[in-house]
Amino acid sequence: MISFENDYLEGAHEKILTRLVETNRIQASGYGSDEFSQKAAEKIREVLGCPKAMIRFLMGGTQTNQVVISSILKRFEGVIAADTGHISTHEAGAIELTGHKILPLSAIAGKITAEAIDHLIETFYKDATHTHMVFPGMVYLSYPTEYGTLYSLEELERISQVCRTHEIPLYIDGARLGYGLVCEESDVTIKDIARLCDVFYIGGTKIGALCGEAVVFTKNNEPVHFTTLIKQNGALLAKGRLVGIQFLELFSNNLYFEISKHAIDMAMKVKKGFIEKGYHLFIDSPTNQQFFVMSNEKVNTLKPFVQFANWETYDETHQVVRVATSWGTTEEQVELLLSLV
Amino acid sequence: MISFENDYLEGAHEKILTRLVETNRIQASGYGSDEFSQKAAEKIREVLGCPKAMIRFLMGGTQTNQVVISSILKRFEGVIAADTGHISTHEAGAIELTGHKILPLSAIAGKITAEAIDHLIETFYKDATHTHMVFPGMVYLSYPTEYGTLYSLEELERISQVCRTHEIPLYIDGARLGYGLVCEESDVTIKDIARLCDVFYIGGTKIGALCGEAVVFTKNNEPVHFTTLIKQNGALLAKGRLVGIQFLELFSNNLYFEISKHAIDMAMKVKKGFIEKGYHLFIDSPTNQQFFVMSNEKVNTLKPFVQFANWETYDETHQVVRVATSWGTTEEQVELLLSLV
Amino acid sequence: MISFENDYLEGAHEKILTRLVETNRIQASGYGSDEFSQKAAEKIREVLGCPKAMIRFLMGGTQTNQVVISSILKRFEGVIAADTGHISTHEAGAIELTGHKILPLSAIAGKITAEAIDHLIETFYKDATHTHMVFPGMVYLSYPTEYGTLYSLEELERISQVCRTHEIPLYIDGARLGYGLVCEESDVTIKDIARLCDVFYIGGTKIGALCGEAVVFTKNNEPVHFTTLIKQNGALLAKGRLVGIQFLELFSNNLYFEISKHAIDMAMKVKKGFIEKGYHLFIDSPTNQQFFVMSNEKVNTLKPFVQFANWETYDETHQVVRVATSWGTTEEQVELLLSLV
Amino acid sequence: MISFENDYLEGAHEKILTRLVETNRIQASGYGSDEFSQKAAEKIREVLGCPKAMIRFLMGGTQTNQVVISSILKRFEGVIAADTGHISTHEAGAIELTGHKILPLSAIAGKITAEAIDHLIETFYKDATHTHMVFPGMVYLSYPTEYGTLYSLEELERISQVCRTHEIPLYIDGARLGYGLVCEESDVTIKDIARLCDVFYIGGTKIGALCGEAVVFTKNNEPVHFTTLIKQNGALLAKGRLVGIQFLELFSNNLYFEISKHAIDMAMKVKKGFIEKGYHLFIDSPTNQQFFVMSNEKVNTLKPFVQFANWETYDETHQVVRVATSWGTTEEQVELLLSLV
Repeated sequence: MISFENDYLEGAHEKILTRLVETNRIQASGYGSDEFSQKAAEKIREVLGCPKAMIRFLMGGTQTNQVVISSILKRFEGVIAADTGHISTHEAGAIELTGHKILPLSAIAGKITAEAIDHLIETFYKDATHTHMVFPGMVYLSYPTEYGTLYSLEELERISQVCRTHEIPLYIDGARLGYGLVCEESDVTIKDIARLCDVFYIGGTKIGALCGEAVVFTKNNEPVHFTTLIKQNGALLAKGRLVGIQFLELFSNNLYFEISKHAIDMAMKVKKGFIEKGYHLFIDSPTNQQFFVMSNEKVNTLKPFVQFANWETYDETHQVVRVATSWGTTEEQVELLLSLV
Repeated sequence: MISFENDYLEGAHEKILTRLVETNRIQASGYGSDEFSQKAAEKIREVLGCPKAMIRFLMGGTQTNQVVISSILKRFEGVIAADTGHISTHEAGAIELTGHKILPLSAIAGKITAEAIDHLIETFYKDATHTHMVFPGMVYLSYPTEYGTLYSLEELERISQVCRTHEIPLYIDGARLGYGLVCEESDVTIKDIARLCDVFYIGGTKIGALCGEAVVFTKNNEPVHFTTLIKQNGALLAKGRLVGIQFLELFSNNLYFEISKHAIDMAMKVKKGFIEKGYHLFIDSPTNQQFFVMSNEKVNTLKPFVQFANWETYDETHQVVRVATSWGTTEEQVELLLSLV
Repeated sequence: MISFENDYLEGAHEKILTRLVETNRIQASGYGSDEFSQKAAEKIREVLGCPKAMIRFLMGGTQTNQVVISSILKRFEGVIAADTGHISTHEAGAIELTGHKILPLSAIAGKITAEAIDHLIETFYKDATHTHMVFPGMVYLSYPTEYGTLYSLEELERISQVCRTHEIPLYIDGARLGYGLVCEESDVTIKDIARLCDVFYIGGTKIGALCGEAVVFTKNNEPVHFTTLIKQNGALLAKGRLVGIQFLELFSNNLYFEISKHAIDMAMKVKKGFIEKGYHLFIDSPTNQQFFVMSNEKVNTLKPFVQFANWETYDETHQVVRVATSWGTTEEQVELLLSLV
Repeated sequence: MISFENDYLEGAHEKILTRLVETNRIQASGYGSDEFSQKAAEKIREVLGCPKAMIRFLMGGTQTNQVVISSILKRFEGVIAADTGHISTHEAGAIELTGHKILPLSAIAGKITAEAIDHLIETFYKDATHTHMVFPGMVYLSYPTEYGTLYSLEELERISQVCRTHEIPLYIDGARLGYGLVCEESDVTIKDIARLCDVFYIGGTKIGALCGEAVVFTKNNEPVHFTTLIKQNGALLAKGRLVGIQFLELFSNNLYFEISKHAIDMAMKVKKGFIEKGYHLFIDSPTNQQFFVMSNEKVNTLKPFVQFANWETYDETHQVVRVATSWGTTEEQVELLLSLV
């Protein structure tokens, strides 16, 4: 039985494990003040070409979104996001728990547009009753999106411009950032990401780490007393080294991008294979998540041998399945998959 | 330079690392539904003699306190705790962030009493204006306490009884549970803990794990939709296996208690050594945290060689230092320490 | 200058003022425990034919929605509402402030349907990832809606049925309840409202009172320690008599319905007059809020003489204006209005 | 049966009622933007000698504390207050509901000192672990206190100075402000209050109004988008005129201070009478709340004729009763009371 259900099926990339083992007995100070975390931040700043970036390590994506968004928004503000965005759908109300509304925009294949953001903000301020409404205070988008799709550099430039015009920060959820950046269709670099947004996170959990995400405040703009805010949210790890060491390894010798590239290679092989076998793409995704239309019968037949995520119902006899590859997917697994479907 | 600053200075016990490496490529389902976590829960249930206990794995102590307390309290309730308790002092307002007041009791050496709890509750209900006040809805205590002290079995029995009489749950913070249970002065077993409280957690971070705490609902009383509550709090780890595997190892072959015992042996050696050298105990602690009165001058002299936690000012020329041992402390380190002080 | 901008332009119905003056020196106990409030509740129970209804008086609509919704929802639940509903748009995020998400449904002329509610809930529970989502925990609708439209008895029966099937409470916002119930097109009585929902409120602020809304828990289902929850929300009036006396008067001698009827008569006169003068209805509303398409030029010409609410932009040269009548609108005002437009 | 149970037993001062009746049919804009509220603010600014003061009207004391404190504190901050302060005890956790901790100081007769405030803040910043603690972000005190006691001008000057030194705002709860200012022992004027604090409120509910408190931001320092914050808290009254008109009347022709003085005259008469009859003062209060030690037997004998508040148990056979006078207390009532006790 093999699984392509998601991109967090295995532990960690072996190089990361090795580094954890090697450093295990070195005594380090707590709560993210350790040298590993400092060095990892330095490595990331180099890769970003952003010497002033302020970097913190948190444990997971929902936690990161919750801590970052609630630390930046003012009490009267909400966050603009795609109605299909992770914070809108699959975080169990984590943002609302912090007292903030999500201002939803209709997404197309997971994406929102500069025009829609601008329209929402303009309409808000024109409304004579807007002091009785939630102020738009931030824009959230995922790169790549929850549907595996990508924003082009031009699209990001325009969204960034709208945010600047209206003086609200742009936050990019990079849970799968590496998988987006390295794929062929992408014309965006990690330096572009850093340049165009005010804060983003580099996903580790789904790209080779046991756990952990690196939050980057790109403009010397970390919220005041951010350590306290993280602690208050229950998100400050005593052994901060655990995430620091992992990101230190990920951002040494290009590992983060190499293993991202591997996942994309595997995904393209899957895509090509499925298309050749006559499957229809539900969404034409260039990244590590591939969405195919499959008959319910076929899904059932395959169940004992291979696992996908059931994404949604397509019609009465078909469903959309998601096949996810990751840093950990092997050629053998892909070949076995293709032989089975 | 060696450090006794706290009990989370190193990575993880080597057996845990080994298990993480061995299981690394096994595909596992996410969010705590994996087999490792299931097996770890089963092991813990056996050790507790509590076949109905419901067990969940979270990442850290503050997070655990926040998730558990906010999931159990009703909106109009607060939690009774020592004014020196971790939730009262060093969690940056994590409990208040969830909308709940902490009802403080004056602690003696970190401990609260059944009488004081009973008095608070009785006084509350007798007060004609109590509907304008926060209802006492839960009791929180730490075993061992933040001052390294212990409740006796009789003390815990009486506190448990008061909670039962008033029908409010008792929650025990076991960040250093092992260190409390194995020390000579303790007449409490982990089965007693499970029997006497409604929920507690078994600390992993400070006892051999990279991260992670095991929450135990002892009376088949896990809050409804607890997964969703964990997720909403940003506390649901995608790779739940990370904590599951660690607890599986900790609760296999008695490892948790063995390494706890080792830390206590080291602590007693430290204590004896310090006393022999004429240091005064600030608190007579039987556990892995030892508190000594030391001259500021001596502290400064030692600074380049050994690190303690500065606990509090004692008088103008002295301070209280905390020496913490852990699963990771070696005989050599203790001898070096004693030769230095 | 006369204004039809909204339905809270004047103070209170004169009978209410008189009752306030008459009772002014009678000493009464505080926080809603006074006899006036008790009598008012009794009068309302009689009118509802609901001897077990539990009734509380609060100060305003947003406060009422916030207190009621946050007192009923469990921590993991959200409230289903029209995307045009008051809580979704014009309460500045008051519901999210309490930690709860609003689960929006696309409204048609302000209304939602039993089918849409049922679909949302069914889809939620079918979703394999629903434990990572906000649970639907309540349905909110406004009668009449924010667009002045009405649900038919059959529509309410079906919505009520869906709520019962899924075992979630139905909450009706009756800020303008009287205006809905007395109009000719309505086939719903206040007894139907009480029978079909679990909790609703009878708006006072917009129907003759200085302030105040009466919350009715129809099924002996007031939340436990509701007084404390109200207090905690800053919503417990020391002189609860202020609202109690007003509702006592409103529900004595049918005053509430009489003055509601008067407002509807005035609204129908306005509607007829506008139609005769060639104005187009933006929405065909049977209640006290009338929506007309008017040229921007006309609006500007009228500005020194009469005030409307600018509802929204219609096209480049026209806007939608809202004309609201109330218990306080006089025949003279309506005639003057019609002579002006 | 007469009552001295509290100072909110009657409706409103007759002049206020008259003004409400006279202005009843004047159409006014909503949500506090009406001319009455503007004029009332202007009158208050004159009385304060504070032309830049920003003034808002809210409904009650708990609501005011909740809105003001949560609007000013940053997310990582708490509010320093007496452990006997209203927010610490009788607001059902309203401050914690907004996510903020109250940092309690031991009060003496309801009062806190500049020294204690300074010590708390100094200790906080000296603590090496303070980033894991709640930051002191504001000082709250009540003038007069919940025990009817007063701060001297010198005490307030020193507290104000400490707040300035540490750059945190001082907030004064003036639920009974008038009763404090006009009593003989007071050497504080309302101009002093305005000068020494950053924000305070002038209590209306207990001093002649049906409801309402006037919040004064003394240093041009109203929180940004405060209207939205008020609305979000469910505290924005549609007919803002209701409170505006009342404060307009209270601050015309010195009414606020005259009726405050009347209450104090009545309180002193009560005090003198009780002392003459041999009752012991529990606290020597100069304001409208008087606290006497009375035998339980006497309390029971009096119960059918006169009501007090049972403040607390004194000993097994005695209790502390609170006798409150107000703007509404008559000479006849006081004489009757004295003849009874």
